[in-house]
Amino acid sequence: MSAEIITIGTELLHGLVRDTNAERIVELLAGIGIEVHYKTSVGDDSARMADAFRAAAHRARYVVTTGGLGATPDDVTRKTIATVFRRRLVLDETVLDRMRARFRERGVEMPAMNESQALIPKGTKIIENLRGLAPGLHFTYQEANFFVLPGVPAEAEAMMDQYVVPFLRASRAGSQVGRRIVRTIGISESALAERLQGIESEEPAIKVGYLPHASGVDVTLAAASPDRAWLTGALDRLELRVREAAGEAVYGEEGETLAQVLGRLLLARKLTIAAAESITGGGLGAAITSVPGSSRYFLGGVVAYSNRAKQELLGVRTATLERHGAVSAPAAEEMAAGARERFGCDLALSTTGVAGPNGGSDEKPVGLVYLGIASRDGSESARFIFSGVRAEVSARSVSYALDLARRHLLRQPV
Amino acid sequence: MSAEIITIGTELLHGLVRDTNAERIVELLAGIGIEVHYKTSVGDDSARMADAFRAAAHRARYVVTTGGLGATPDDVTRKTIATVFRRRLVLDETVLDRMRARFRERGVEMPAMNESQALIPKGTKIIENLRGLAPGLHFTYQEANFFVLPGVPAEAEAMMDQYVVPFLRASRAGSQVGRRIVRTIGISESALAERLQGIESEEPAIKVGYLPHASGVDVTLAAASPDRAWLTGALDRLELRVREAAGEAVYGEEGETLAQVLGRLLLARKLTIAAAESITGGGLGAAITSVPGSSRYFLGGVVAYSNRAKQELLGVRTATLERHGAVSAPAAEEMAAGARERFGCDLALSTTGVAGPNGGSDEKPVGLVYLGIASRDGSESARFIFSGVRAEVSARSVSYALDLARRHLLRQPV
Repeated sequence: MSAEIITIGTELLHGLVRDTNAERIVELLAGIGIEVHYKTSVGDDSARMADAFRAAAHRARYVVTTGGLGATPDDVTRKTIATVFRRRLVLDETVLDRMRARFRERGVEMPAMNESQALIPKGTKIIENLRGLAPGLHFTYQEANFFVLPGVPAEAEAMMDQYVVPFLRASRAGSQVGRRIVRTIGISESALAERLQGIESEEPAIKVGYLPHASGVDVTLAAASPDRAWLTGALDRLELRVREAAGEAVYGEEGETLAQVLGRLLLARKLTIAAAESITGGGLGAAITSVPGSSRYFLGGVVAYSNRAKQELLGVRTATLERHGAVSAPAAEEMAAGARERFGCDLALSTTGVAGPNGGSDEKPVGLVYLGIASRDGSESARFIFSGVRAEVSARSVSYALDLARRHLLRQPV
Repeated sequence: MSAEIITIGTELLHGLVRDTNAERIVELLAGIGIEVHYKTSVGDDSARMADAFRAAAHRARYVVTTGGLGATPDDVTRKTIATVFRRRLVLDETVLDRMRARFRERGVEMPAMNESQALIPKGTKIIENLRGLAPGLHFTYQEANFFVLPGVPAEAEAMMDQYVVPFLRASRAGSQVGRRIVRTIGISESALAERLQGIESEEPAIKVGYLPHASGVDVTLAAASPDRAWLTGALDRLELRVREAAGEAVYGEEGETLAQVLGRLLLARKLTIAAAESITGGGLGAAITSVPGSSRYFLGGVVAYSNRAKQELLGVRTATLERHGAVSAPAAEEMAAGARERFGCDLALSTTGVAGPNGGSDEKPVGLVYLGIASRDGSESARFIFSGVRAEVSARSVSYALDLARRHLLRQPV
């Protein structure tokens, strides 16, 4: 029941873009217990693509490809499939009509060039593109099922969700593989590993892994077994142990973000929130509003990059800025209190710090961050020194600010 | 002069870790003008690894592999090389002594298990590991050079820097490939391709590619030729043609972001900017402040998610919200004007729209976005319908807002 992924696009071999499609598809297949044996990237080159298609056709049961379905001359996936698998390209009128309608919706006439996207290899099934233009394709060659998806990540992912994963589930392609992910923040990888020492010997068939990133450390538990019931039981037992060991640092499971968890906690308590941002420049508000429906609890924010903005828009006192500076606990607390008052909300978060690469000093080094929270109980702040480049310092500030609110809300009654 | 990358490790096929080795090696090879034709990942499985090695040996001139050089039983790269290329494994006393010395330095006796790392396929050259234990290997098979590196990213990168890249430079492997990237925004991929139709026939040796993403479309020009001077000239000519055809839509070249370009334009004109965000939730400010030194021109922003915040913090009129709604041209213009006044800056940008997935209507569908800009000449706005999921609508809104400011500034004297 093995699968193979082929991502197509010269840009993938130039170091310009990250191959997020391969990453995401591997994850989705692993999630339904399908093992990926090969992952290949080739450029927009018909001969090399053909080579990869032929190799996959002979060794894999399921092949997922992305890319090369656009309308420009460098998009040659359809043509290559026609050649390799000896299927004539036929203009599909339904696809063409659907594409024309898409353009009409936007009030634009479809350029002639896009017609090539309706040329479909004969005998292939169309996978409708709900997010864009180019349809996906599904066909079989001997024992292999080919799923041919567009390169635009959101379009490829939508087709995985709407067609490929349900198809594979229905054909019971997945073997007895189980995985759990416990997401934590506020505890280091090594501290977590120490607390979990010996845990692997309790269930030797389960592989324990640690995956650190800007929003904490994920603990992964993975196992394969012919005995589904045993597998579920063993994973349940070990997941419980991990959750006990990590305590309040646990914020979620696979696929959950801190912003989603925070949103749920706020909704359950019927509370609203606002943000007063300096170092994160708007990233905290962007994270909170990445959750659909966040307008029910997020009222807004102020990005106070200049001192004047901190004073005028958030009411930070001149004396505070003069005595402690903009990167200080009192400034963080006044920013949060000011935002809470301006927006008339229950909670407000604030961020202030030195993002780098310049602007650091011995006393206030690059990576120094103060995060504040204001509630009806008053204002508090926490001090951090984050490592990494500018973008990482900012990303960690966002995560730990969300966590500050999460931990505060855990202590409030629902 | 083509290269191929093979990354080895079951974890790469489980979707939990990013294949940073492949990303980094592609970048390093592109940097010295070596084209990568295939990038493959396989698990710690001897048969599949052998398969990948054999394919690479027959089609690539240079093959870089990472992973599978550890001491545990699942590390089978050395054994597989011995089998595939018929080279006997021999215990290398020099390598063994060096490894023992490493352990002694740490005050530890070398475990017997590690001896396997000194088993070297006969006739291969050792690449010393300055960052860790397992040595790298270099050997040739027919026309192909194999560089076999460890999976630990820092160790693999050190070997690339200290051995592989200098070797390839010395053999002049990479001198005959050139690349240009022209970054555009505000013109669709197919419109761009139509304007550039026939351009490929002007310089048939140059491959033209299109890479669309949230911040526009990148046009890539790539070519290989034995004649370096001709190559540079041909790329110069074609780049000029692309820049002419795309006109004001061109904002930068390889490695440049819209936020950087905007920052430079503002600094050159000694102007300041602020943001009034609704649909982007802070993402616009986050993009502007992703640039080091942005505090010199970015004063701050208001994230006005609720109508009340739009009125109280940005001075949007109640009548405007009642008559036109928060997602409208007048609201966008008043938001921008309000931010400009609040922050006392030269320019202000605003974003308002329907991010989805819910909240859309026939009149105001998901993806409808108004972007505003206020300057001393007054306020303007532009209407867009962006496709994609919530995160994409937001990302496109950020990019097009930055572009609105960029185009405005291009018309202002320096």
